[in-house]
Amino acid sequence: METDAVTIMKALGEHAKDAAKAMRMADTQAKNEALVLAAAVIRRESSEIISANALDMKAADENGLDDAMKDRLLLNADRIEAMAEGLEQIAVLPDPVGAIDHLRYRPSGIQVGHMRVPLGVIGIIYESRPNVTADAAGLCLKSGNAAILRGGSEAIHSNRAVAACLRRALVDSGLPQNAVQLVDSTDRALVGALLKSEHYVDVIIPRGGKSLIERVSAESRVPVIKHLDGICHVYIDASAKAAMALNIAVNAKTHRYGVCNAMETLLIHQDVNADVCSAIIQAMIDKGVEVRGCEKTRMLCEDLDVKVATDEDWATEYLSPVLSVRIVESLDTAVEHIAQFGSGHTESIVTEDYEAGQRFLREVDSSSVMWNASTRFADGFEYGLGAEIGISTDRLHVRGPVGLEGLTTQKWIVLGSGQIRQ
Amino acid sequence: METDAVTIMKALGEHAKDAAKAMRMADTQAKNEALVLAAAVIRRESSEIISANALDMKAADENGLDDAMKDRLLLNADRIEAMAEGLEQIAVLPDPVGAIDHLRYRPSGIQVGHMRVPLGVIGIIYESRPNVTADAAGLCLKSGNAAILRGGSEAIHSNRAVAACLRRALVDSGLPQNAVQLVDSTDRALVGALLKSEHYVDVIIPRGGKSLIERVSAESRVPVIKHLDGICHVYIDASAKAAMALNIAVNAKTHRYGVCNAMETLLIHQDVNADVCSAIIQAMIDKGVEVRGCEKTRMLCEDLDVKVATDEDWATEYLSPVLSVRIVESLDTAVEHIAQFGSGHTESIVTEDYEAGQRFLREVDSSSVMWNASTRFADGFEYGLGAEIGISTDRLHVRGPVGLEGLTTQKWIVLGSGQIRQ
Repeated sequence: METDAVTIMKALGEHAKDAAKAMRMADTQAKNEALVLAAAVIRRESSEIISANALDMKAADENGLDDAMKDRLLLNADRIEAMAEGLEQIAVLPDPVGAIDHLRYRPSGIQVGHMRVPLGVIGIIYESRPNVTADAAGLCLKSGNAAILRGGSEAIHSNRAVAACLRRALVDSGLPQNAVQLVDSTDRALVGALLKSEHYVDVIIPRGGKSLIERVSAESRVPVIKHLDGICHVYIDASAKAAMALNIAVNAKTHRYGVCNAMETLLIHQDVNADVCSAIIQAMIDKGVEVRGCEKTRMLCEDLDVKVATDEDWATEYLSPVLSVRIVESLDTAVEHIAQFGSGHTESIVTEDYEAGQRFLREVDSSSVMWNASTRFADGFEYGLGAEIGISTDRLHVRGPVGLEGLTTQKWIVLGSGQIRQ
Repeated sequence: METDAVTIMKALGEHAKDAAKAMRMADTQAKNEALVLAAAVIRRESSEIISANALDMKAADENGLDDAMKDRLLLNADRIEAMAEGLEQIAVLPDPVGAIDHLRYRPSGIQVGHMRVPLGVIGIIYESRPNVTADAAGLCLKSGNAAILRGGSEAIHSNRAVAACLRRALVDSGLPQNAVQLVDSTDRALVGALLKSEHYVDVIIPRGGKSLIERVSAESRVPVIKHLDGICHVYIDASAKAAMALNIAVNAKTHRYGVCNAMETLLIHQDVNADVCSAIIQAMIDKGVEVRGCEKTRMLCEDLDVKVATDEDWATEYLSPVLSVRIVESLDTAVEHIAQFGSGHTESIVTEDYEAGQRFLREVDSSSVMWNASTRFADGFEYGLGAEIGISTDRLHVRGPVGLEGLTTQKWIVLGSGQIRQ
């Protein structure tokens, strides 16, 4: 019932707000201890977690979930160890909270700067992978926030078991167990109630497929940090080094197919040598990639099996071994193509030309813009964030990979010696 | 009609998006020239602006607007000169766009950093003051954004005249005139349509009274940077220097009454000397401030005219010569009082005690937290932003005074030499 959902969420929200107050003041050592302890508890309880996961796997069979979904849902010894190690890795990251930046004197004599502080209460809405319970809770904990976790109903037993480990570790470290709360029900009305908890929740982070993210964005009264499509481009400029262009294009497309920072469209300047184009496309085909090209591409590579690319291709995030290829007249056309069809995630130019590289960096409006590097680097670990809770394709607050800092905000601090305003 | 409003807003949105594309790439010199030229055009057209304003003033009389509202609406030679000077001041501020921060090498060999870029299209919804038209447009222009301005209907003629000056200056500087668009209609449905323009508008900034801001927050599908109440506190700790405490309290309350960073509640530690308390309250009364105190305050200052403070007082932003005073047992009580009744705007502690100051800075969760300084310093100019478009009491994206940087976002940039992901 709707009212029940609101009542349940209100209680969770109040507990989270109380916990957030304590977490905001928690010192670095207590937070690190809680993370290390949570890893230990997860290892100790690993057979209980696997038993709980078995219930979810059984239900998955009964409900006819497909193999990909069941693979995401599965927890085994390796995956449990990976969760524990993930928490230990978060423990050794620098604590962002309380860091003071840019403190400087003003003509009035006051010193003004920024102090980094937690966001408060973070709602995480995610789908089948139960490891998100540990990852997301760990990042929220280290950044001094309270987390309300709403996992997929198909993973409820697994999530409950993992969340219990985290809560035990919090208590044993002298921190409030309600810093990690699981929405312990599969009632979908609770998602709606969470999205309307603007008085308790400071930000919602949805992690999952497009339909989940679209629902969350449309319904939420709480600000959302979201990740939509990754239609990433590599643009090979006229002056690109041939071997580098080939390496980057092949890596960006074929290193992993189902990831948001994989290349989906390759743009090639018309002055790039025809042999270089063919070699790149041949390399893709050799890797088992289906290539769909514009008219010029197909003419240039007429010996190769290049299918016809339609406008729909330019706008598609394949997440699979399919690549669309377009030959463009100029850097301008490449930038326009990206503006029209891209999703603002990650784009890379391959060029030795200083002006072209500089212009691409400035003119392409994506969360990551690269010069002579594979789009696959768009990742919290590769950027040095240590861990990421997701990649934001939003413009406000945080853009691209979101690590601990993205889960914090800043307040102004002023240090005076009695100054008053004249 | 609703549909008309949507159609009008769609056209404005499309124009703004096109203009934003050009503004994003506009160089610093062109933007500065446009600002300086806009100032010159405003000075040249000052008699036209005053004639347009006279129409608004006449309507204000006919509609029985009160004197405060008419004063806010009025444009005279001085105020027009101030608008022009404001634009010139924005012109000399450093351009935030394109600035690259924290570029550093990663173990993979790539360099990773942040580049500051415009937000895109900014909707400003404001009330009677027509100078906001120039101020807000100037800040959006310098930060490389396109602005859609929706001023109060009572200022429509004035806003039209000022916006025309800005648009002329844009054209004459080779920039798109649609970087500044005024919603040239008093139809209230247009506000609703603007708030639902999430496909065209990146952020909405409402400037005005509480009811405007609450309406905007409740209805908007576009992210909002908003400014709610300023219930600011000064806390005088046991170890405060008496003269400093008096100076800061009097300045925070009486320097200006109607501003959001004025003190509304004074908290005094119970160990502060009774003579010091009386002297502060006496000084307030001498300045014409009505003092409302807790029971202890009234007992302590029984010779003075201290009225009874209720719970409603603690939660009130007076914006007038009224002050509530509470004597507290400890720093903890002060911090709790602020958490319960404050609005998260600005709070200041007066203390010589290192631990108390450090704790206050860390534990008070407001957009500005001060130590031995007047709350009146919470201001974009005083903080060195050069100018401000408002003060954010939100937690995400930007908090406290919002200057040019708050109107931008960041993208990641990666500089490589052919790196691929292993």
